[in-house]
Amino acid sequence: MSKIKIGIVGLGLMGGSLSLALQKQSEAYYFIGMDHNALHCSQALELGLVDEITDSLVLLKTCDIIILSIPVDSIIAMIKSFDSLPQTCTLIDLGSTKEKISLSVPAHIRENFVAAHPMTGTEKFGPTAALEDLYMDKVVVLCDLEKSGTHQQEVAKKLFTDIGMQLVCMGSKEHDRHAAFISHMPHAVSFSLANSVITQEGSKSIVALAGGGFKDMSRIAKSSPNMWEDIFRQNKTNVLEALAAFEVELDRCREMVQNEEWERLNAWMQKANSLHDILS
Amino acid sequence: MSKIKIGIVGLGLMGGSLSLALQKQSEAYYFIGMDHNALHCSQALELGLVDEITDSLVLLKTCDIIILSIPVDSIIAMIKSFDSLPQTCTLIDLGSTKEKISLSVPAHIRENFVAAHPMTGTEKFGPTAALEDLYMDKVVVLCDLEKSGTHQQEVAKKLFTDIGMQLVCMGSKEHDRHAAFISHMPHAVSFSLANSVITQEGSKSIVALAGGGFKDMSRIAKSSPNMWEDIFRQNKTNVLEALAAFEVELDRCREMVQNEEWERLNAWMQKANSLHDILS
Repeated sequence: MSKIKIGIVGLGLMGGSLSLALQKQSEAYYFIGMDHNALHCSQALELGLVDEITDSLVLLKTCDIIILSIPVDSIIAMIKSFDSLPQTCTLIDLGSTKEKISLSVPAHIRENFVAAHPMTGTEKFGPTAALEDLYMDKVVVLCDLEKSGTHQQEVAKKLFTDIGMQLVCMGSKEHDRHAAFISHMPHAVSFSLANSVITQEGSKSIVALAGGGFKDMSRIAKSSPNMWEDIFRQNKTNVLEALAAFEVELDRCREMVQNEEWERLNAWMQKANSLHDILS
Repeated sequence: MSKIKIGIVGLGLMGGSLSLALQKQSEAYYFIGMDHNALHCSQALELGLVDEITDSLVLLKTCDIIILSIPVDSIIAMIKSFDSLPQTCTLIDLGSTKEKISLSVPAHIRENFVAAHPMTGTEKFGPTAALEDLYMDKVVVLCDLEKSGTHQQEVAKKLFTDIGMQLVCMGSKEHDRHAAFISHMPHAVSFSLANSVITQEGSKSIVALAGGGFKDMSRIAKSSPNMWEDIFRQNKTNVLEALAAFEVELDRCREMVQNEEWERLNAWMQKANSLHDILS
């Protein structure tokens, strides 16, 4: 039986981890990698993330499945460069914002395309950051799935289910608003937290005292600036709305402390505690 | 050899974990517990956190070491209730703010007293939250140590070193400012983050998408409102200053997104990345 050919464009944390997860589950795959970063290409080969490297779009288009695990702006540019794709080819992007990507897909390859956002990651990046279990037991959001071909829907669902993910389907517009609240705004908050401490006199001695709380809250402030610049650009409106909602609560907190409204502050914190009930 | 008697006032996460850590390290201790919560008392006995429960201050004062692992306001009230202590008794508080506590210790027991802040914890509370390794490899800040008796300094240093902690000494004023930045303000941010999401329409479906980043950043929003009301009250001035520093950075972030200053935003995120270099 010939192997299933998977093209991975972007050999970083997400693309590399996807290869490891698929390899763990089956030997049926052959991986062709593409990355504009020569070091990442050689690292991906050394680490066994891919079987070969190519810079040929023609070769890439022979793959059964093509994964776009690159920044959102690059996904949009790349999608436009596909003048045609074989009918059986499934093109899946893993971008963190979805509406602009979904709108940018040319009609002639729309059925080939599946918009996916795996809700997982770490603050690390590049091929060496790849983890076999990055996707296990995590949620993947599939957007505007009704616009994908029947074959492509099945291929994408099987791919993500095979690596242990839970499927959630929604429209790309709804996704982008949800992602702004659950991921993009919290990243802006974490970057702000890190910078507010770094800016302090004696920041090293402050950080020396860091317990688990601060470490947890500043972890994602180590994320890739290039990737996040792109996400904030793509999802600007929703991010600003989520930041505004956060600032309402932060102002409320500051005012209650300032005005010594301790009972109200206590009740407000109790409300925050209730997150426990809806977050497993 | 008779056992070393340790009184633990407050049988929650911090007090309970201290008992487990000491028991792991030696059989030389006998634990006497005190807690106004009857359920916590029976749980602490069942879980083996203490050997006996008392509500007698007279009995408590026969201990070699007394640990106050209760909210800061209660620590201040309790310290004032000790009219005298045997010269060899060491009274250690584990409160999260230190200046007001340090100033409130009556002169006649000042040498008995050691102000300590272990920089560790979890969002859970009560005796059932106790963890044997909560203190292992963490930092404990000892404040205004020159005001403690020589014997008490040695006892406290040995106690925390024995359970695997790293000692850091500083003044209580400096501690409170550092703690505001590294712990108290981040808690206010986490409570605000949790409430900003809970307040959204469809918050359950938003939270269903939560990846590691949001989970990390909202974990401490599950912390005890009573404990944190107390900390915000005790350290109000420093907390407001730290919140203001955070808001400067958050405003900067929002403005750069609003004005589409992507290069500046990227550089700002790179600065946040540098936290990686100073945080192990």
